[in-house]
Amino acid sequence: MSVKPSSENTVLQKIVRAFRTQPSGVNRSLKLSMGDDAALLRLRSNNEEVLTCDWFLEGTHFLRDKHLPDSIGWKCLARAVSDIAAMGGRPKCFLLSLALPTSHAGTWLVQFLGGLRRASRKLHCPLAGGDTTKRDEILINITVVGEVAADGAVLRSGAKVGDFVYVSGTLGEAEAGLRMVRAARGRIDSKSASLKKHLYPVPRLRLGQWLAEKRIASAMMDLSDGLSSDLPRLCEASEAGARIFASQLPIPILQGGIAKYRANTSQLALHGGDDYELLFTVSREKAKKLPKSFGGVPLTRIGEITPAHKIILVEERGRETALVAGGWDSFRVGPGKK
Amino acid sequence: MSVKPSSENTVLQKIVRAFRTQPSGVNRSLKLSMGDDAALLRLRSNNEEVLTCDWFLEGTHFLRDKHLPDSIGWKCLARAVSDIAAMGGRPKCFLLSLALPTSHAGTWLVQFLGGLRRASRKLHCPLAGGDTTKRDEILINITVVGEVAADGAVLRSGAKVGDFVYVSGTLGEAEAGLRMVRAARGRIDSKSASLKKHLYPVPRLRLGQWLAEKRIASAMMDLSDGLSSDLPRLCEASEAGARIFASQLPIPILQGGIAKYRANTSQLALHGGDDYELLFTVSREKAKKLPKSFGGVPLTRIGEITPAHKIILVEERGRETALVAGGWDSFRVGPGKK
Repeated sequence: MSVKPSSENTVLQKIVRAFRTQPSGVNRSLKLSMGDDAALLRLRSNNEEVLTCDWFLEGTHFLRDKHLPDSIGWKCLARAVSDIAAMGGRPKCFLLSLALPTSHAGTWLVQFLGGLRRASRKLHCPLAGGDTTKRDEILINITVVGEVAADGAVLRSGAKVGDFVYVSGTLGEAEAGLRMVRAARGRIDSKSASLKKHLYPVPRLRLGQWLAEKRIASAMMDLSDGLSSDLPRLCEASEAGARIFASQLPIPILQGGIAKYRANTSQLALHGGDDYELLFTVSREKAKKLPKSFGGVPLTRIGEITPAHKIILVEERGRETALVAGGWDSFRVGPGKK
Repeated sequence: MSVKPSSENTVLQKIVRAFRTQPSGVNRSLKLSMGDDAALLRLRSNNEEVLTCDWFLEGTHFLRDKHLPDSIGWKCLARAVSDIAAMGGRPKCFLLSLALPTSHAGTWLVQFLGGLRRASRKLHCPLAGGDTTKRDEILINITVVGEVAADGAVLRSGAKVGDFVYVSGTLGEAEAGLRMVRAARGRIDSKSASLKKHLYPVPRLRLGQWLAEKRIASAMMDLSDGLSSDLPRLCEASEAGARIFASQLPIPILQGGIAKYRANTSQLALHGGDDYELLFTVSREKAKKLPKSFGGVPLTRIGEITPAHKIILVEERGRETALVAGGWDSFRVGPGKK
């Protein structure tokens, strides 16, 4: 990240100031961050590196007038780190590419950086560098660098016929939160507990690392676009299909402002995006030893991997239907609409 | 980079197809690219990693109706790799974040990927992953991962008072090309030799590596925003100033369509951006052994590092003036204007 001796400086200076006191113990491998052409990172031998990048764009992924900058800062990093969790990795550092209007280079930026900094500390993922520019719209791109033991990453492609399909936590609460935010007039109170899953998701890093290190999961990914969109991706990578039981889906108890969506919990659980829970498969033998929860997060068996290359939803009374993707796909729906 | 089983697929499938035949010999360290939550990279011990990311946005960095998609594809990677060259590093792989309108997901995308792929091969920098989304405007963000020997990177901060200041190649030709493109009606012929520096810049990788490995350069950066903007950054990082001689600036011989800018070569060389040449400093002792050129690229001494924290331009007859930054700063000038 280059520090420029002119007006662009005010944006960069705010970023540098927000991250000046990154705890040195957090990541000793980060040798040089910000202020040069590129960041330098010390490598640990016998490990593999995990690399991911994620768009977080106004109108497409968040709404400027509805989402508080603090939650935008938190979420842009948390969701990118979720891809590292999905491989069983540990985050090492991140790069921030930020484009924003001059009108947002003051208070908005400071609040955005506040949320980003808290996520950075919580997830042990310090800022290593980035790029800034002026733009009418707020554009964010986050690159996260992580590491995993050599040959220790859990891929999407490892599921075998007969494996059980699991998810962590509950599904659909983030989508209910999004609907509440859309329906609200103006900015919503980001401290509302019922919106926590939507505004401040926490990637399942410890769970992902445990499933990888103990070699429990045969395949894994994170649920970002919704079960009905993401499960087909895991199955396609594993050249298999799946049968999912509607009655076994871990449905959240919707409270507070999102309680009005209670009647739709099944649909929210199947198609809602942004949960950042882990979807993983476990062989029948290893499944016997899998606990009901890990670190307070429930682990729920929702179905099994099948040889037929299709996704079947088993509804009440055993009725079987093909599960059709209803989750997030920016090329199918317009920006800001779902 | 996730491959989605829906309409977003057509974009991703084009990307995957364009990069399917990445030469395996190019980068054996890239273990898993595309098709999972994140990419996996094998680490080489005793090396440090170099990380950089760069925006390349319609209206700000390129013009949709004037720049051919092939040159946009080439340049977005070449300029990001230039940051690796500026540290003395070697590129290992890159991530592509691409947002574009559905109208550009066909021919435009294929041509864009053609230029990107040629740059990827030329620079030995394979595609490792990325993210795609739909957007009204074309947005590109490139992350490049490189490597350098431990403690072998050349930083901006190493210049010492008395060191000579050098630049590679010539300065200002890319800016002349940009002016010609702006003045043209509609798309310009990207095969024009006089536009090569503007449309198809080549980062000085071998030179940067040589200056780093032989420990010749005491400080180094790439010239992306223009000498008058970038030199102050190197001096600020080194807590020093510089004196530059106008008569010594390596001015290009402008031919073809850009010949009409010949009268402005001094100003172009001082303030023009996008040259992606290397700016570096060398101690007086080591300077004695520095060749006049490296691999056909001239190396020109343009001045020296001074203790006073200011940048002085020595013009004809020894008249000294303060060099004021006139290069690219997106927060000072509006998008698409300079």
